[in-house]
Amino acid sequence: MKILDDELIDDLQNSYYILQKKNSFKFGTDAVLLADFAKDGAGARVLDLCTGTGIVAILLAAKTDAAEIYGIEIQEDMADMASRSVEYNNLTSRVKMVHGDLKEAEKYFKPHSFDTVTCNPPYMKLGKNIKNELSAKMIARHECLCTLDDVVRTAAGMLKYHGSFYMVHRPSRLIDIISTMRAHSLEPKVLRFVHPYAAKEPVMVLVKGVYQGGEELRILPPLNIYNECGEYCDELKQIYSSEGAK
Amino acid sequence: MKILDDELIDDLQNSYYILQKKNSFKFGTDAVLLADFAKDGAGARVLDLCTGTGIVAILLAAKTDAAEIYGIEIQEDMADMASRSVEYNNLTSRVKMVHGDLKEAEKYFKPHSFDTVTCNPPYMKLGKNIKNELSAKMIARHECLCTLDDVVRTAAGMLKYHGSFYMVHRPSRLIDIISTMRAHSLEPKVLRFVHPYAAKEPVMVLVKGVYQGGEELRILPPLNIYNECGEYCDELKQIYSSEGAK
Repeated sequence: MKILDDELIDDLQNSYYILQKKNSFKFGTDAVLLADFAKDGAGARVLDLCTGTGIVAILLAAKTDAAEIYGIEIQEDMADMASRSVEYNNLTSRVKMVHGDLKEAEKYFKPHSFDTVTCNPPYMKLGKNIKNELSAKMIARHECLCTLDDVVRTAAGMLKYHGSFYMVHRPSRLIDIISTMRAHSLEPKVLRFVHPYAAKEPVMVLVKGVYQGGEELRILPPLNIYNECGEYCDELKQIYSSEGAK
Repeated sequence: MKILDDELIDDLQNSYYILQKKNSFKFGTDAVLLADFAKDGAGARVLDLCTGTGIVAILLAAKTDAAEIYGIEIQEDMADMASRSVEYNNLTSRVKMVHGDLKEAEKYFKPHSFDTVTCNPPYMKLGKNIKNELSAKMIARHECLCTLDDVVRTAAGMLKYHGSFYMVHRPSRLIDIISTMRAHSLEPKVLRFVHPYAAKEPVMVLVKGVYQGGEELRILPPLNIYNECGEYCDELKQIYSSEGAK
């Protein structure tokens, strides 16, 4: 398998590996927490939007029995690298990477054909003072090529009736997230806030929505990353150590 | 001052007192937490919707320098009892209770004339299987006489530009709360979840909204009621012990 000069291969510590760009956006705790959050509700046919390195798709292949997992990525070199990660992990029978724009998802996938859609989207709104430079980091972090509305509208369009959408995002965007999801008939059903420490404000929110679901929200207990001694909390240790567990 | 046979007088432990009905809805931790949450942002002119016993209005009189605090209550006997609590506490120069329906608030108050609106509303939607019995407990807990939409619409109509709305509610209603607030130009700005224990799901949410405010949400660290030994957490002790502190 080809590994480019600007790429490196990371061991996911669960007998899976991932290619990443040496000098670009690396996957973070958010992707790992999203895959863990989504694993219990993941159905047979899964679509990961903004898949980037393909980390969420590959972790879901490791953690679930999903038969078909697709990732869609707008950057051609990233989509190509993600495909090679799939190949490296011998997952080509279950995981497929598509180079394309999620705003045109219906070019690649049949509408309302997925049980589950996941997304770790760019978190930041595009400020007016942002330069025109479209680096991979910029695309991963800012809403240059897709907005929250694009992500949610596409997820709703791809999900079967009562299919589940899982997303990780910033708590500061929660009002937008909820309004946008409701506008596209993706009823928010579960929220979980991720706090760096128990007594600190949350830095991430995990959201589960159900397409055309009824109104009833559950907010899970906080997920804390570090304990008072600055070590990973037990739940975090378990999430990282069980990345390969089904 | 008159105290009716079905009433008792409770010591708020901060040199203030409140009349309550012996066999009806008593104020709870939610009212105390709401008053504490609202105290720092309370302006000169405050309106408490669904005031009931008047507890939030009286606590705000104790905790803040607000010059005029109004409570509005639809049940005549409750509004009368709340007025007598105000009298008992020698607060008649600052706190006034109005018997009326918040849906017709403009009959009693000038629109957009308040710096702050607070509300500890009925939490539960009116189920189809609920009997026609309109007891005081029923009115306090279920949306018999006012809905979330009524509360939020009235708050928006009474607030000055950039005035603040403070509400306590159930986390399960969060999506409705946020959607309704945005629909009435009350932008949610601060959320704080209240957990019985740190590792449990929240049982209350404190919400601050700003009338015609910009989009930016802050989620505060969790507020936990009990520690692992089942005692009040330090913050709760402080809130209860500082009820009289300005």
